[in-house]
Amino acid sequence: MKRLAILGSTGSIGTQTLSLVEAFPQEFQVVALASRRNVTLLAEQIRKFSPRLVAVEKEGAAEDLRRRLSGLEVEILWGPEGLVSLAIAPDVDLVVSAMVGTAGLLPTMAAIEAKKDVALANKEILVMGGELVMAAAKARDVRILPIDSEHSAIFQCLSGGRREEIKRVILTASGGPFRDLPRERFAGISPEEALRHPTWSMGPKVTIDSATLMNKGLEVIEAKWLFDLKVSQIEVLVHPQSIVHSMVEFIDGSFLAQLSITDMRLPILYALSYPERRRNTLPTLDLTQISSLTFEPVDQEKFPCLSLAYWAAEVGGTLPAVLNAANEVAVSLFLAKRIDFNDIPSLVEKAMGAHKVRKLGSIEEALEVDRQVRHHLGAEFGIAG
Amino acid sequence: MKRLAILGSTGSIGTQTLSLVEAFPQEFQVVALASRRNVTLLAEQIRKFSPRLVAVEKEGAAEDLRRRLSGLEVEILWGPEGLVSLAIAPDVDLVVSAMVGTAGLLPTMAAIEAKKDVALANKEILVMGGELVMAAAKARDVRILPIDSEHSAIFQCLSGGRREEIKRVILTASGGPFRDLPRERFAGISPEEALRHPTWSMGPKVTIDSATLMNKGLEVIEAKWLFDLKVSQIEVLVHPQSIVHSMVEFIDGSFLAQLSITDMRLPILYALSYPERRRNTLPTLDLTQISSLTFEPVDQEKFPCLSLAYWAAEVGGTLPAVLNAANEVAVSLFLAKRIDFNDIPSLVEKAMGAHKVRKLGSIEEALEVDRQVRHHLGAEFGIAG
Repeated sequence: MKRLAILGSTGSIGTQTLSLVEAFPQEFQVVALASRRNVTLLAEQIRKFSPRLVAVEKEGAAEDLRRRLSGLEVEILWGPEGLVSLAIAPDVDLVVSAMVGTAGLLPTMAAIEAKKDVALANKEILVMGGELVMAAAKARDVRILPIDSEHSAIFQCLSGGRREEIKRVILTASGGPFRDLPRERFAGISPEEALRHPTWSMGPKVTIDSATLMNKGLEVIEAKWLFDLKVSQIEVLVHPQSIVHSMVEFIDGSFLAQLSITDMRLPILYALSYPERRRNTLPTLDLTQISSLTFEPVDQEKFPCLSLAYWAAEVGGTLPAVLNAANEVAVSLFLAKRIDFNDIPSLVEKAMGAHKVRKLGSIEEALEVDRQVRHHLGAEFGIAG
Repeated sequence: MKRLAILGSTGSIGTQTLSLVEAFPQEFQVVALASRRNVTLLAEQIRKFSPRLVAVEKEGAAEDLRRRLSGLEVEILWGPEGLVSLAIAPDVDLVVSAMVGTAGLLPTMAAIEAKKDVALANKEILVMGGELVMAAAKARDVRILPIDSEHSAIFQCLSGGRREEIKRVILTASGGPFRDLPRERFAGISPEEALRHPTWSMGPKVTIDSATLMNKGLEVIEAKWLFDLKVSQIEVLVHPQSIVHSMVEFIDGSFLAQLSITDMRLPILYALSYPERRRNTLPTLDLTQISSLTFEPVDQEKFPCLSLAYWAAEVGGTLPAVLNAANEVAVSLFLAKRIDFNDIPSLVEKAMGAHKVRKLGSIEEALEVDRQVRHHLGAEFGIAG
């Protein structure tokens, strides 16, 4: 029985994780749940999964939850300290880190320091603090199990060789909805068009990141830290069918690729059950029903966000945190129709160019850089930073 | 330094193995070479690689070799006993079993019994004696390392999970030259047409086996023994591009696939260097240069040889030896224009139907069944059995 704490239980990854806990009652037990503010759904989840411990972001939400759950035996915490207490609870074996944004950084780092294995869905953790997070995990012999389908694929393919036998990893990208759109028409892309993503069902921020390929850029940074690679060992190929979730090329010229249906429950289940695999009732891939699998290089001219991410990955230090924060603000501005689609990379590039890069000393420092970038851009556009 | 004995050094796999020994002089040393009768090439190889020990099939060839190599310090053996002595020589670490036909069975079994690891290219060994060979290998903790590209692919993909987590393996088949030919036209296929194989460069017997899909059927039988699978866990898919060399599906719905250029030196090198991989100068796969990867089911009506092999795999015992021997005779008859393309499966089916299957007690028994089938069919068609 693996005992779980789920940070971000009411989000997409969190709810899918809970559906798997339900499907495998003999394998997984929920000890702790945390959600920023979706008190209604969290209360439902608490009734169903009976965690010992829960946490929310604000005191008001905690009080609301207490009223809703009066009579139930559950400890309700709040604020950053609440999240950290939950992540390091002694009866937790595995922390599912699936809180969107920067709120997951400190509790995830605390979990690693408390020697908890981490199933990682939150992108910011490795993008902003990858070097520190992986060093802490290595020092404490903690497993960081990727939930992202691409990194889960690489993780699985890596079993085919030794670390020093990796030639490169190939992250596959669906290419987003504008793969075939001529570059001249990018300026006119509306948020509505950008939100129609062909393959995965995701929130608006991630969907825009898929359209700009910034999501792939963030994955490049994550892959660098997660698998201890040189940036030059990470390649991105467009694979519109999203069946091959990523690949590893070994030094002898042999490639291993991981394929499956596009369903996040597969990589989540793999991370939860690792080092074992679990039989399940999800639909299976029928290769004969797929017309063909294709691979193309990325048009870097059309998708400058990817090059910006490679730049941040190469330089490291505080620069990836700048890329991430500036991108998040830029995507909000685009969704609010304040800037053009093409302004997303321009704005990110400008923020990166203006930043004086330094070595990253702590997770708190990454969070401080994040706040500063949001504050500056917020001030420039007259929005809350 | 790994010390090699190469059974079948003058054949296609043998010469490619030697090219790799040449490319990696610090890794591999040739201790022993054996060839059935190509004395000219064998003498050249002996001069170049200085093996301590060599063997040929007939005494006359051994004498010829002695004359050619007078003055060189090399022990020259002949006959089945010579092959066996060579395979069990104390200074051999790995036996490359690449002799075509049944001649490799006894020396390979002897090598396993002498606790030598085996890099296996010869199909007959597992097809005719798989159960006994794998039991001997298991009992002596000997590694059987497949050289065939499909089995090498499966072997590599299996690292992604535990034995009990394998759902099935998918052997890919190029589909041969008649994949798109209507069934009505199969009767008229000439040997010349059948010998034009699209992807790999192979000898005539193997090329015809590729055209009938019997080669894939033999691989099904090999996979059953090599990976200890149920026949129902082995599927064949047509993949005309021959880039994905095979796949494994795990119980959780995740597939691992192995991809590379089509060059036998890759799986040979992997078998030689296992458990390590070696950087090399072979061309590498550029996925962006491939138009697309496709997968189709096999048309069992058009390729009855595959069903016959599944039947032999399912029944086991002496039946696979009958399938193999009858197919070999049938292919010779087809190449000699004595029978039609469609007669190949008919003749094999008839031989299988006429055979009273029994449990296989020894390799010698498999060889005896082989001789009987050849003798009967030879008598029927007035050729040497």
